[in-house]
Amino acid sequence: MTRLATFTDAKGPRVGAVLPDGGMLDLSAVAPGGALAGRTQDMLALIEGGAAALAAVQTLATNPPAAAILPAGAWTLLAPIPRPRRNVFCVGRNYMDHVAEGDRTRGITNSELPKFPQFFTKAPDTVIAPEDWIPAHTGVTQWLDYEVELAAIIGTEGTDIPKERALDHVFGWTIGNDVTGRDLQRRYGQWFKGKSLDRSCPLGPWIVPAGELDALNTGIRCFVNGEKRQESNTAKMIFDVREIIHQLSIGFTLKPGDVIITGTPEGVGYAMVPPKTLQPGDVIECEIDGIGRLRNTVRAA
Amino acid sequence: MTRLATFTDAKGPRVGAVLPDGGMLDLSAVAPGGALAGRTQDMLALIEGGAAALAAVQTLATNPPAAAILPAGAWTLLAPIPRPRRNVFCVGRNYMDHVAEGDRTRGITNSELPKFPQFFTKAPDTVIAPEDWIPAHTGVTQWLDYEVELAAIIGTEGTDIPKERALDHVFGWTIGNDVTGRDLQRRYGQWFKGKSLDRSCPLGPWIVPAGELDALNTGIRCFVNGEKRQESNTAKMIFDVREIIHQLSIGFTLKPGDVIITGTPEGVGYAMVPPKTLQPGDVIECEIDGIGRLRNTVRAA
Repeated sequence: MTRLATFTDAKGPRVGAVLPDGGMLDLSAVAPGGALAGRTQDMLALIEGGAAALAAVQTLATNPPAAAILPAGAWTLLAPIPRPRRNVFCVGRNYMDHVAEGDRTRGITNSELPKFPQFFTKAPDTVIAPEDWIPAHTGVTQWLDYEVELAAIIGTEGTDIPKERALDHVFGWTIGNDVTGRDLQRRYGQWFKGKSLDRSCPLGPWIVPAGELDALNTGIRCFVNGEKRQESNTAKMIFDVREIIHQLSIGFTLKPGDVIITGTPEGVGYAMVPPKTLQPGDVIECEIDGIGRLRNTVRAA
Repeated sequence: MTRLATFTDAKGPRVGAVLPDGGMLDLSAVAPGGALAGRTQDMLALIEGGAAALAAVQTLATNPPAAAILPAGAWTLLAPIPRPRRNVFCVGRNYMDHVAEGDRTRGITNSELPKFPQFFTKAPDTVIAPEDWIPAHTGVTQWLDYEVELAAIIGTEGTDIPKERALDHVFGWTIGNDVTGRDLQRRYGQWFKGKSLDRSCPLGPWIVPAGELDALNTGIRCFVNGEKRQESNTAKMIFDVREIIHQLSIGFTLKPGDVIITGTPEGVGYAMVPPKTLQPGDVIECEIDGIGRLRNTVRAA
């Protein structure tokens, strides 16, 4: 499995591949040229390099030149796309049991499936890195909550993308945590306000190329302080990734580097009995089988 | 009145001031240096130059050097910020009579005022220039509609901005047309999908500095093919610009160059009796007293 990462050290941010032994293949330390020329400083540039650039990384990661390997501990992960060029696109209410638990908190017992995906967005600057801290936003929200989500990274531009071609437009997969102020989400009617608090979109730890994972059928989990809170499978989405890409792209051009987070399963804190809100010091680990774990800590700030 | 514009000609995009006689003061043709050094190619750079850069332009526009004036016809306006760095932030249901007309289309007769502003966003790439064309999006929406809105351009970064300090964070004012697919807006529950069709955010024609217009009390109108469809005053907003900036900035850092469109008054097409949708060839003119007119044409595409 190829793990495409953005990392940094004293030389600044650049793109690499995390190796099985935990080392980092520093792509900028490989002799430049060919499909990777000019594409090793920035994940967006790598994505725009298309299939040839990706294949070059996959080949190098399989047989990495020793001189280009940085040992574990010598670098720090950033979000794979540290600052998307535009909105992080999001889908709400996309797992049946999460729809039901949300309805239950409002006294609704016979939940109906959404007929169309409910799209909203977060600001691009909400993205933070693996191991980075999430502000508790005390005084702003009384109800900070987590949401593990599969994130699709778009590789190829497209408008009105048919469902059966949707996966051709995906560059790869990563994990998102759609940190939410539940009280704000309700208070403001539309969800943007509750969904776009500063530093509310942990993303990572790396990107797995689209062809290396069946992301339509893989386990998804979230742990808070080691306690398993969410556990499901992406196969249980109401609208799968292909349908999401199809619907989002209707009259709206998707572009390379776009980040789409695809909804969270049941088990969020506000629907627990009794409810549990995130508190300073809480450690959130979002896990997707075939990708890895995204770990962040809530901090009073 | 200073009219800060982004324009282009054979030399490419740059920043200027539209003069009373219709000429363009080409700021890049003025001897460089001082507060404008490096800030004449890009409106975002000018905004980041702060009060000193703005004052320099205001002084030049009052007494423009003849050699730096391009005659009308020698240049084309772009949107004042052709590509915002992130989401265009929007407010829904922010004039009482627009709330009432929207409710009426759903059979609701006793409209309630929203208690908090309803924030949603458009993608930054939806922004198009004055005189640029809006796609009819035939086949995507059966119900394309216009919405004239006052746009606030943020000048100074801030988080948790108090209402009484909000206007200190405004760089200037322009006009937005929040073009909407009404059927999509309803179908998808959350508004992003219906609000973010390609090329659905005409913006311009220029920015009037914050201190040169009382934007909290000025006439706002929209004409379609010369027929007046919307007419109100920004004083009739449910949440005025100061309250919008205050609320939006709670736990969310506003940044220089951010664009906030502040809601539309009554008179949109879908609430007319009988309703009228935008059609290819329709000319939409959005007007705000003290700023100017933003004109765009719908084109089959």
